[in-house]
Amino acid sequence: MTRILLKITYNGKEFDGWQYQQNRRTVQGEIERALKSVHREFIRIHPASRTDKHVHALEQYAHFDTTLDIDPEKWSFILNNKLSGDIRIIESKEIDPEYHVRYHSKGKVYRYKMYFGEPSPFKYGLETHVKDELNIDRMREAAEYFIGTHDFTSFSSAKTVIENKVRHIYKLDIIETTNGLEIVIMGSGFLYNMVRIIVSYLLEVGKGNRNPESTKENIENKDRTQNPKVAPAGGLYLERIFLTEEEQGDYLKENT
Amino acid sequence: MTRILLKITYNGKEFDGWQYQQNRRTVQGEIERALKSVHREFIRIHPASRTDKHVHALEQYAHFDTTLDIDPEKWSFILNNKLSGDIRIIESKEIDPEYHVRYHSKGKVYRYKMYFGEPSPFKYGLETHVKDELNIDRMREAAEYFIGTHDFTSFSSAKTVIENKVRHIYKLDIIETTNGLEIVIMGSGFLYNMVRIIVSYLLEVGKGNRNPESTKENIENKDRTQNPKVAPAGGLYLERIFLTEEEQGDYLKENT
Repeated sequence: MTRILLKITYNGKEFDGWQYQQNRRTVQGEIERALKSVHREFIRIHPASRTDKHVHALEQYAHFDTTLDIDPEKWSFILNNKLSGDIRIIESKEIDPEYHVRYHSKGKVYRYKMYFGEPSPFKYGLETHVKDELNIDRMREAAEYFIGTHDFTSFSSAKTVIENKVRHIYKLDIIETTNGLEIVIMGSGFLYNMVRIIVSYLLEVGKGNRNPESTKENIENKDRTQNPKVAPAGGLYLERIFLTEEEQGDYLKENT
Repeated sequence: MTRILLKITYNGKEFDGWQYQQNRRTVQGEIERALKSVHREFIRIHPASRTDKHVHALEQYAHFDTTLDIDPEKWSFILNNKLSGDIRIIESKEIDPEYHVRYHSKGKVYRYKMYFGEPSPFKYGLETHVKDELNIDRMREAAEYFIGTHDFTSFSSAKTVIENKVRHIYKLDIIETTNGLEIVIMGSGFLYNMVRIIVSYLLEVGKGNRNPESTKENIENKDRTQNPKVAPAGGLYLERIFLTEEEQGDYLKENT
């Protein structure tokens, strides 16, 4: 048996998320269908992260086990031939059968894209349109409070069943683009909806509806109800997954 | 009765083209649904051009007649509130009830977008991926033969029922972009599939499968079967429609 690791990118617009659901188009469902057509039997795939409906991935990892004698590097080519153009396997390789990409990976980077001006049909589902003027200095001031180790109960879905809500945020950058803004957040891990609630909170700060200084108290309150709704899924990109501490360290060095 | 002209843009990816079809998502169908919900009765909309399945429009025009006493400029706002993010009414205004945007407009510009390198899920349906290396000088040489007044039987769908296949091409430019190519074609009018057949022909020339010099004979043969299949719809954008000769003249002056 060989464990194969896939590096995957997908446009989430026409997917009901990663996780398999009957009669829905999901990323897992599409890749498992491709794997089944090669193996002639069902093969389960395990992702590093289960992205939500309409969320994109610039880099996602997933692994599966195979008994077929196929060159590990060839899997990307074989599967791409069976997948639609909105998913692409960037790379495939063999990994240690003891390595589980969800439990052993070290952290992630998400990017949230938004734009100003007239709404564009060509950005629909790919970037979030913001009509308000934003005060970026205020947003950056608020962003500082998220960095470090915190209990993120206030910034995760009330439906979260995971007990330990402490996560470490390494970086939270707000980047001005030609006609918009990108929020890049790097953390040890993220709770359900956490990035999209932090983004919508920062937007409220930028619009002047929240004070940057109250962010500390907001986190300490551990109360989800005080914070705004999640930001739309279409602006969110899973950008990096660190398979090892070394990869994470290199990213931090390159991005400081 | 007031005739309202709409300037429209849409991302064609999730549309089965402009023209209404039962149980299909079409641009006409979506706009007529929005108009019906305002008028409480069916209102027909007439486009300048019926774009095919998955073809995009940066600028499309269409008009409808209304007896409602609504400020003509307000229609864009009213309809945008009822339309999905992949269609957008850029502008609305009153026009002469004798003006028919399909019969009275003077010409059009189409743009075809393609890119090289690794296929990207985020360009899927928006630009056509080309894996071959292209000789752009050869393509430009072939492009010259299309300019002027010709019978374009060789470059239109065999299904075309229109008898007069003579059209005038004003410009045919091949533009290199950061990681791809755009073909911009301006004409008095276009036959069914004409732009997409010209594009696929130029790609064959670029790949070295056709000689630029044989383009003249190819046009003169008036034989559709000698030419390649249509290029994929997702790379094609209806970019401009000239409502008057003056608009067309201005465009030519600005783009020479």
